[in-house]
Amino acid sequence: MKLATVTHDGRMKAVLVGPDATTVWPLEDMLGRPVPDLTSIIAELDAIKPRLKPTGAGLPLSAVKIEAPIPRPARNVMCVGKNYHEHAREFTKSGFDSSASSVADAIPTAPIIFTKVPECVVANGADIRYPAGVSDSLDYEAELAVIIGRGGRGISKADAYSHICGYTIVNDVTARDLQGRHKQWFLAKSLDTFCPMGPWLVTADAVDPANLGVKCWVNDELRQNANTRDLIFDIPTLIETISAGLTLRPGDIIATGTPAGVGIGFSPPKFLQRGDRVTIEIEGLGRLSNKVA
Amino acid sequence: MKLATVTHDGRMKAVLVGPDATTVWPLEDMLGRPVPDLTSIIAELDAIKPRLKPTGAGLPLSAVKIEAPIPRPARNVMCVGKNYHEHAREFTKSGFDSSASSVADAIPTAPIIFTKVPECVVANGADIRYPAGVSDSLDYEAELAVIIGRGGRGISKADAYSHICGYTIVNDVTARDLQGRHKQWFLAKSLDTFCPMGPWLVTADAVDPANLGVKCWVNDELRQNANTRDLIFDIPTLIETISAGLTLRPGDIIATGTPAGVGIGFSPPKFLQRGDRVTIEIEGLGRLSNKVA
Repeated sequence: MKLATVTHDGRMKAVLVGPDATTVWPLEDMLGRPVPDLTSIIAELDAIKPRLKPTGAGLPLSAVKIEAPIPRPARNVMCVGKNYHEHAREFTKSGFDSSASSVADAIPTAPIIFTKVPECVVANGADIRYPAGVSDSLDYEAELAVIIGRGGRGISKADAYSHICGYTIVNDVTARDLQGRHKQWFLAKSLDTFCPMGPWLVTADAVDPANLGVKCWVNDELRQNANTRDLIFDIPTLIETISAGLTLRPGDIIATGTPAGVGIGFSPPKFLQRGDRVTIEIEGLGRLSNKVA
Repeated sequence: MKLATVTHDGRMKAVLVGPDATTVWPLEDMLGRPVPDLTSIIAELDAIKPRLKPTGAGLPLSAVKIEAPIPRPARNVMCVGKNYHEHAREFTKSGFDSSASSVADAIPTAPIIFTKVPECVVANGADIRYPAGVSDSLDYEAELAVIIGRGGRGISKADAYSHICGYTIVNDVTARDLQGRHKQWFLAKSLDTFCPMGPWLVTADAVDPANLGVKCWVNDELRQNANTRDLIFDIPTLIETISAGLTLRPGDIIATGTPAGVGIGFSPPKFLQRGDRVTIEIEGLGRLSNKVA
């Protein structure tokens, strides 16, 4: 099942997206109460899922404006660094990685977690704003993102999947110069518009997150082509590690890391320029496409 | 002027704190509308300040429960790492610092910014929960925290102070083992209860933030004793750097870094144990005291 947040008739609404992704049905019509975005129903998603069925003709997807599925997360988006082997090596080799002293040390021995401010989340189709005067080494990172449905602390690997309500795509846009210069990655990852997310939430029952093809194009050039089965730290490990001492909450987002093929993986680096379009496709989750403007 | 958030009669209220810190007056009585916490008035603080005057006898401070001045920040608390020379050296020497390869490299050349989840904020007097089974190297960090009043992007150093509505104290509690192991510091800094904050907000007009004594005791032992004039990156530099590409918002909190004397600065390290009390005093801002339980 696909669920999206859209703007229609001047207000935000959570909607069910049809299997062919051409028609949407507002959840308010199924539940008999306003549902302004997915955040408000995430904690109860399992309970209401049986009631989420198309009612009537619906609206053409083309008649609504798609928003990020969680348009404004309640706290910073959590992200995992260097979580694919080949990417860990390409990043450390690039010279921008303050977390490793040499390529021999590139593969992390524990998950590397940092955050992006919630306000940098933008929707599928929105522009990534080129940070003129702030950075000249803009890079893309295609990532599978986990959306937490049921919160908790001390969640075991065995229970981890039961805390996930769904998945979406995140482009963990990064200013590489700031990432190297400031050592901790928060600032380089949090510039305005640096977190394209979407196009929608796919419910956890609909995909096997441990076996999803991840592709990323810049314009027409395929840059990243991998599978989530190659994550160094799998999703249960990430949830167990993060929740060990930090209570996870419904609506928390964990972007699981990017595979090889980012701009700094090339020699010379292929940084994003104004006019470039980044398109990410994850099997079963759709396509997230954003232009640099 | 001191402003606090308290619980009284079963609900949260923003209050004015008298000069001798024994009496408080609810802002709702002055403004004629509910003011549940300081967050809701921060953006308009300059405009309403003339109306904030004691009305009637007030309430004894002892009759209300003090909350953190911003009990639940709207997004993660931003923190600055290694922002005092002596502390930068003690931390790098400790072996827990993944951001520097040697002591020669200890002093950062640009501000190091990371975040803590908003839910780890606790009030003066609340317990710091010992993270049994998660970390056995709990440490304290006394810090001056800036509270943003007026948001903005591309704020210059010259304008920076006009964006600040006030100051408070933060104890940037840290699990040193997690800080070393996970390279990025978010997780080690975000465990539940890891951000004692308070006791109140002191308005920007009341102190010179560039010349404040900072002291921290563990039980009766003075561990940190410094002055904010020794910050490596001063407050205007921090605001200019962060806001260059990331829009600051009213209520944002920036903890400016801790001076030398944290637990890992000692040999052997003096980590916090259950029963220890950490008390931080910053000149003009009061005392923030929390027990490890």
